[in-house]
Amino acid sequence: MGFPGNAKNAALADFRPGIKSKVELGSRLIMAIMEIGAGKEDRGHEHPFEQCGIVIEGVIEMFLGDERLLLGPMDTYFIPAGLFHGWKTTASRVRLLDVSGKP
Amino acid sequence: MGFPGNAKNAALADFRPGIKSKVELGSRLIMAIMEIGAGKEDRGHEHPFEQCGIVIEGVIEMFLGDERLLLGPMDTYFIPAGLFHGWKTTASRVRLLDVSGKP
Repeated sequence: MGFPGNAKNAALADFRPGIKSKVELGSRLIMAIMEIGAGKEDRGHEHPFEQCGIVIEGVIEMFLGDERLLLGPMDTYFIPAGLFHGWKTTASRVRLLDVSGKP
Repeated sequence: MGFPGNAKNAALADFRPGIKSKVELGSRLIMAIMEIGAGKEDRGHEHPFEQCGIVIEGVIEMFLGDERLLLGPMDTYFIPAGLFHGWKTTASRVRLLDVSGKP
């Protein structure tokens, strides 16, 4: 809450293998600064809540249903609830600011 | 929904005097790319939903309750529901990516 820091420079903690994060956990919103390592992939999943965000640094290939795009710095995404989506990083790590509506 | 574009370059529409925006309206989340002109101020308000975001470009002075900070590019904020908050721009316009939980 308040001012969680700079998305580019904030110190992050290990979240899952290859993924670090700093999370602000509200009652309705979850805001996370995330860093995903090079060469990682999520082949797809879905969840019953909306998710949106912006690329801070690096590039990430993302698909939302049938749409697929290579996103770079300042590119945004908005994932409807229930839509199958996934992502893939390339040769370098990527930082995102990601916001989910709480399940 | 999907890929709303680049937060730095996206074309915005007039929203209120001195404020332009491009809004993605979900069922639980509202994501907006916003641009606030130079020399604007919101002396404070509150609302019963959470709001968070990141500065894309420019600087903005923001207060959240008793905390006050000058935010620049990539600085983040998370406003708890019900907290009195406001902002002030300086000599230049500012762009934000802002996300609210829907009331």
